[in-house]
Amino acid sequence: MAAGWFYLSLLALSALGLMCILFTIYWMQSWHGGFAWDGTISMFNCHPVLMVAGMVVVYSAASLVYRLPQSWVGPKLPWKITHASLHLLAFILTVLGLVAVFKYHNNHNIPNLYSLHSWLGITAVFLFACQWFLGFAIFLLPWASMWLRSLLKPAHVFFGASILSLAIASVISGVNEKLFFSLKNTTKPYSSLPGEAVFANITGMLVVVFGLLVLYILQASSWRRPEVGITTEGQPLLHERE
Amino acid sequence: MAAGWFYLSLLALSALGLMCILFTIYWMQSWHGGFAWDGTISMFNCHPVLMVAGMVVVYSAASLVYRLPQSWVGPKLPWKITHASLHLLAFILTVLGLVAVFKYHNNHNIPNLYSLHSWLGITAVFLFACQWFLGFAIFLLPWASMWLRSLLKPAHVFFGASILSLAIASVISGVNEKLFFSLKNTTKPYSSLPGEAVFANITGMLVVVFGLLVLYILQASSWRRPEVGITTEGQPLLHERE
Repeated sequence: MAAGWFYLSLLALSALGLMCILFTIYWMQSWHGGFAWDGTISMFNCHPVLMVAGMVVVYSAASLVYRLPQSWVGPKLPWKITHASLHLLAFILTVLGLVAVFKYHNNHNIPNLYSLHSWLGITAVFLFACQWFLGFAIFLLPWASMWLRSLLKPAHVFFGASILSLAIASVISGVNEKLFFSLKNTTKPYSSLPGEAVFANITGMLVVVFGLLVLYILQASSWRRPEVGITTEGQPLLHERE
Repeated sequence: MAAGWFYLSLLALSALGLMCILFTIYWMQSWHGGFAWDGTISMFNCHPVLMVAGMVVVYSAASLVYRLPQSWVGPKLPWKITHASLHLLAFILTVLGLVAVFKYHNNHNIPNLYSLHSWLGITAVFLFACQWFLGFAIFLLPWASMWLRSLLKPAHVFFGASILSLAIASVISGVNEKLFFSLKNTTKPYSSLPGEAVFANITGMLVVVFGLLVLYILQASSWRRPEVGITTEGQPLLHERE
């Protein structure tokens, strides 16, 4: 891929990711009273922002590290560390996002983990935790054999994309659920599409477009390190030793 | 892949797909009064069943046609026709699913297409329609050049998987939304996880597991036609002439 096109795409993707976060912040700030870390509804408002930032945007940035041409030359260890560190940051944001909703629920005697949104979301977070620890143990620590790395790499890549897909489905169901909760009154129900509904629906669709673009880049051969004579599947990006 | 393992996997996947449809039917039959085609809530009940059957299960079956080893030998035209016909069946079921919800809404003066679930769902259906017509024109009709086919095949494959992902996110948000609608009363709210909530949540999670397995098979090299000396990306399954 030409360098100009690559950097333009990267800039557009970064702008879109940033928009996903900023739109979620604006939604919570303008229609739900903003943020606090005190167990009130303002603490709940941190939940969508932290989940979109952690499980979607930073997670995607971490996943795309190996699509940077700079990572295709020289030692791989710094890029592996960047990949793992960004995913750790994504995981920390995600856990904070969970704390925000659990603490709000507990303070208001609302049960946790009853909706399908929450079942799917907690499954995505659980898989993310497993993926991170397995990735750390197998691909970053130096003890795993090349055989084990090449055996597990396809699963690592597949679960990486799957967790992002589950996160996006969780975001969609979460935004939908929140709008049915907050737009209940009969003068401005969700079904009359008031300003908040349109804005939050657009935010959800932005997250979907961002996620699909990331998934496209992850699987497109034109974004991968070019290697002659090796099939895409066998490309030893992660399982080569430093 | 060994033939025994292949057919066992296929059987398990078919059983899971069938379970997704049967569970949705059972949910609508047992807790929502069953089915009719008369503009009442019983007509709405056809919507989740037809969408799960059309956009998820039959769509997946149609997508997986080229993963059958039988399709790897002999003329490709019969398999292309099977692929297109099954997708057409999936599309017809999907359109009927849309008719069910639109007619119910119209008969009860409920606005259409206001929720994020519906925005995402209608986007998935629109992309599905574009994908089918483009696929038909480029890959089934004999006029497109091999150059055009090989150019468009990666996009066809990517959008195929993306539409399934969007469909699954739509199903999740739809099940979640339906449960918040129907489990409103204070004696058995959704948050107390009554029988219906547990059953429908499990149905949603089954759809997710089914979808992930299909997406895994679609991208796994062990499920593709083995070809020596050709990279996975360049595998000319669709763009070879009969």
